[in-house]
Amino acid sequence: MKKYSEMSKEELLKEKESLLHALEEYKKMNLSLNMARGKPSVAQLELSMPMMDTLHSEADMVCEDGSDCRNYGVPVGIPEARRLMGSLMEDDPENVFVFGNSSLNIMYDQVARSYTHGICGNPPFSKQEKIKWLCPVPGYDRHFKITEYFGAEMINIPMNADGPDMDMVRDLVENDPQVKGIWCVPKFSNPTGIVYSPETVFAFAALSPAAPDFRIYWDNAYCVHFLYDDDHPFIPEILSECEKAGHPDMVFKFASCSKITFGGSGISAMASSKNNLADIKKTLTVQTIGHDKMNQLRHARFLKDHDNVIEHMKKHAAILRPKFELLEATLDNELLSRGIGNYFKPKGGYFIAFEGPDNTAKETVSLASDCGVVLTGAGAPFPYGKDPDDKWIRLAPSFPTPEELEKASEIFAVCARLAYLKTLTA
Amino acid sequence: MKKYSEMSKEELLKEKESLLHALEEYKKMNLSLNMARGKPSVAQLELSMPMMDTLHSEADMVCEDGSDCRNYGVPVGIPEARRLMGSLMEDDPENVFVFGNSSLNIMYDQVARSYTHGICGNPPFSKQEKIKWLCPVPGYDRHFKITEYFGAEMINIPMNADGPDMDMVRDLVENDPQVKGIWCVPKFSNPTGIVYSPETVFAFAALSPAAPDFRIYWDNAYCVHFLYDDDHPFIPEILSECEKAGHPDMVFKFASCSKITFGGSGISAMASSKNNLADIKKTLTVQTIGHDKMNQLRHARFLKDHDNVIEHMKKHAAILRPKFELLEATLDNELLSRGIGNYFKPKGGYFIAFEGPDNTAKETVSLASDCGVVLTGAGAPFPYGKDPDDKWIRLAPSFPTPEELEKASEIFAVCARLAYLKTLTA
Repeated sequence: MKKYSEMSKEELLKEKESLLHALEEYKKMNLSLNMARGKPSVAQLELSMPMMDTLHSEADMVCEDGSDCRNYGVPVGIPEARRLMGSLMEDDPENVFVFGNSSLNIMYDQVARSYTHGICGNPPFSKQEKIKWLCPVPGYDRHFKITEYFGAEMINIPMNADGPDMDMVRDLVENDPQVKGIWCVPKFSNPTGIVYSPETVFAFAALSPAAPDFRIYWDNAYCVHFLYDDDHPFIPEILSECEKAGHPDMVFKFASCSKITFGGSGISAMASSKNNLADIKKTLTVQTIGHDKMNQLRHARFLKDHDNVIEHMKKHAAILRPKFELLEATLDNELLSRGIGNYFKPKGGYFIAFEGPDNTAKETVSLASDCGVVLTGAGAPFPYGKDPDDKWIRLAPSFPTPEELEKASEIFAVCARLAYLKTLTA
Repeated sequence: MKKYSEMSKEELLKEKESLLHALEEYKKMNLSLNMARGKPSVAQLELSMPMMDTLHSEADMVCEDGSDCRNYGVPVGIPEARRLMGSLMEDDPENVFVFGNSSLNIMYDQVARSYTHGICGNPPFSKQEKIKWLCPVPGYDRHFKITEYFGAEMINIPMNADGPDMDMVRDLVENDPQVKGIWCVPKFSNPTGIVYSPETVFAFAALSPAAPDFRIYWDNAYCVHFLYDDDHPFIPEILSECEKAGHPDMVFKFASCSKITFGGSGISAMASSKNNLADIKKTLTVQTIGHDKMNQLRHARFLKDHDNVIEHMKKHAAILRPKFELLEATLDNELLSRGIGNYFKPKGGYFIAFEGPDNTAKETVSLASDCGVVLTGAGAPFPYGKDPDDKWIRLAPSFPTPEELEKASEIFAVCARLAYLKTLTA
C-alpha cells in the first residue's frame, strides 16, 4: 500500500475526494454503532446467567461466618467474597474489603474521604494548600474526572511500553509534598493495553514520597481479563512489594467483577495495608451498615475460586479475541499500511488506543459521529479532556456484535484517513 | 401494684434485694439476647424469598426504557424502580432517583457532597465558618454520626407528641444562617414511634430559612411500615407542601426497601426538586457509572406497586405486631404499673423508646448487658451520645424470636426497676 507521506499532492486530493464520497455513502445508511465504552457484549453477559440461579428462593443465605446475608451488617464483606476477591487480587483476604457494585465508587469514596478527613491522621486534602495528582497518559477518563472534581492539579506522565515514565514519577513524588497520588491501571492499561513491567512495579515500591499521605491508586481492573489463554503477562504484586521495600501503607488496590459477571451488578473490592484499612473502616461504619451481601454470596458461590474464574474468563476471551483481531486487522490493513498512526496490540483488557497523526483525533471522532459511529471523545484519555497533540483515540471493540464492529472499524479507518488527509492538504 | 414512690425505704431495700437475687439467676443462664438494632427477623426475611426467583437464569433482564439491567449505565435508576419508589414516597417518578442498597449511604453522600462542593452553587460546608444541624431528640443515632463526622454543631430539638418543637426549629432556621439542616423521621420516628402531625408538616413547609442551603433531611424510613392493618396515620407529602409554600428546593427525601425486603439487600431512593436532583446528578456521574439495576429490577418485579407493597407489609405486621404487644405488656405490667417511666405506643416502625426516671438509662443498659441482653447504648439516640437526663432507652423488638423477646423484656424490666431503685436508695 502506498504511504500517504509518499503521495503527491494530486494523489492526496484524489484520495480525499474518494473518501469524501465514501463518507457520504455511510451517512445515508443511518447507522447507529458504538465503540465508545468498555461495555461487555450481550454474549458475554449471557456467560454469567447461571449465577442467577445460585440464590433461588430455597437457597441457604448464611455465609461462612454465620451471618444471614439477607440482613444488615458485615460492612467489610463476607469471608467467602473477601477470599474470592483476594485470590483475584493476589492478596490475603484479611487485607481485602468487599463493597458494592462499583469499584469506581470505591475510588471516588477514597479520594472524597482523603479530601474531607485526610489519610491516617494526615490533614484533609481540603485543608492543604494544594494537592497534585500524577496521571499517566493516555489513561482512564473516569479516574481523571474524580481528581478534577476534587480540585487536584493533574500532571500528565508519559506512558512507555513498560508503564509510566518512572524517572518523572520518582522526581515528582520524592520532591513535591503536594503530590498525593497517582492513577495506575497496571495490567492491560486503559486505554493502551500496556502491562507494567516488573521493573516498573519495583520502581513504584521503592518510591520514598515527600508526602506522608501519598498513595498509589492501583486500579487492577483487568487483573484476570486475558485475551489469549496461554499468554498471561505476569506482574509482581504491588502490596507485598511495597511492604518489602518498607512502604507498607503506600498503595490502595482496587478490583471489580463488573467485567467478569455483569457490568452493572458485579462486586468490587479494595486491598491495602492493615493501617489503611483500619483508617477506612472508621468512615465506612458512618457511611453504611453494609453493602449488598447477597450479591457477594451469589458471586462467591458462582465464581468459586481463582482457577474457576480463569476458566470463566476464557469464555469471555473467546468472544472478545475475534473482535480485537478484527479491529487490529482493519487498523493494520487500512491505516498502518498507509503509514497512518500506530497502536499497541493488547493481550488483555478492553481497549485499543490508536495513536494517529497529530491534530487528527477530534476530526476523526467528529467524522465518525456524522456516520453514526460513536467513539470515545477525543481528549477523553487525558486530564481535563485535553490531548496536547490531539492524536489519541480510545477504541472499545467489546460491545458491538462482530458484524457491527466490522462496519464500525471500516468507517473508523476511512474517517482517520480523511482526517489525516485534511491536515496534509490544508 | 404499689408504686415505688409510695414505698417506704425499708420496702425499697427489700425490693432491691429481691431483684438483685433475680439478676444473679439471670446471669447464670448464659443468655445471649439482642434488642439493640432494628433488624428484621428471620421470619420477616422469609417473606421476600420468592423475590429471588424473579431474576432466574432465563429471565428477561431488559427494563422498560430498553436498557439491559446487566450492563453499565442508568445512574439515576431504572424507570420501573423509580415508579415503585415514587409510589411509596408519594412522589412523581421524575423526582425520584433510585440508588443502591443503603439509604444511609445516600444521606451520607448528600452531606459529604454538601461539605465538599456545596448545594446548588452555595459555598461548600467545608469553606463556611461553621455549620449547625438541628437534631430532634431522641432520634436516630446513625443520622447524628454523619453530621458529627462532618463537624456540624448539633443542636437538640425536643420531640413533642406531634413532632419536633416547631417554635424552636423556626426560630433557629429563620435567624441563624449557620443552620444547614435538620434530621427528620416523620413517620413512626426512630426511636419514639411518633408521627408528625399535619400542622408540623405545614410548619416545616412554611419555614423561611436564613441560609439558602438549608435543607430538611426527611428520612421516610418507615413510610409503609404499619403495625395495624386498619390504622394508617396520614401525613401530608412534604415535597409538594414545600412547593406550594414557595420553597420547592427545601427538602431531600429518603426511603429504603431494607425493611420491606432484605435488611442488607434492598434498594434505596431519594426524592427532591428538579433543581436539587440536577445538582446531585453532577456528582453522581463522577462517583459511579450506575447502581445495581438487577436488584432494582428484581424489586420492581416482586413488589410491583403501592397496593401490592401494602399487602406485603401486612405480612410483616403480622409478625411484628405480637412482638410490640408483648413488649408493651411487659412495660405496662412491670414498669408503668409501678410508676416507673413511660413510652409512646407506636402504630408502626421498629422501635419503642422507653423514657425511664432520670439517671437510670446507663445503669439499666449495663445491668441488662450483665445478663446477656444487649440493648442500644444509653445516650445513643442523642447527638454525641449524650442524653442530658440519662433516661431514654431505645428498644428494638423486631429481631428476637417471640420466646427470646419475652425473656429479654422480662430482664429489661427487672434491670430498669433495679436501676431506679439504686437512685432511690442511694
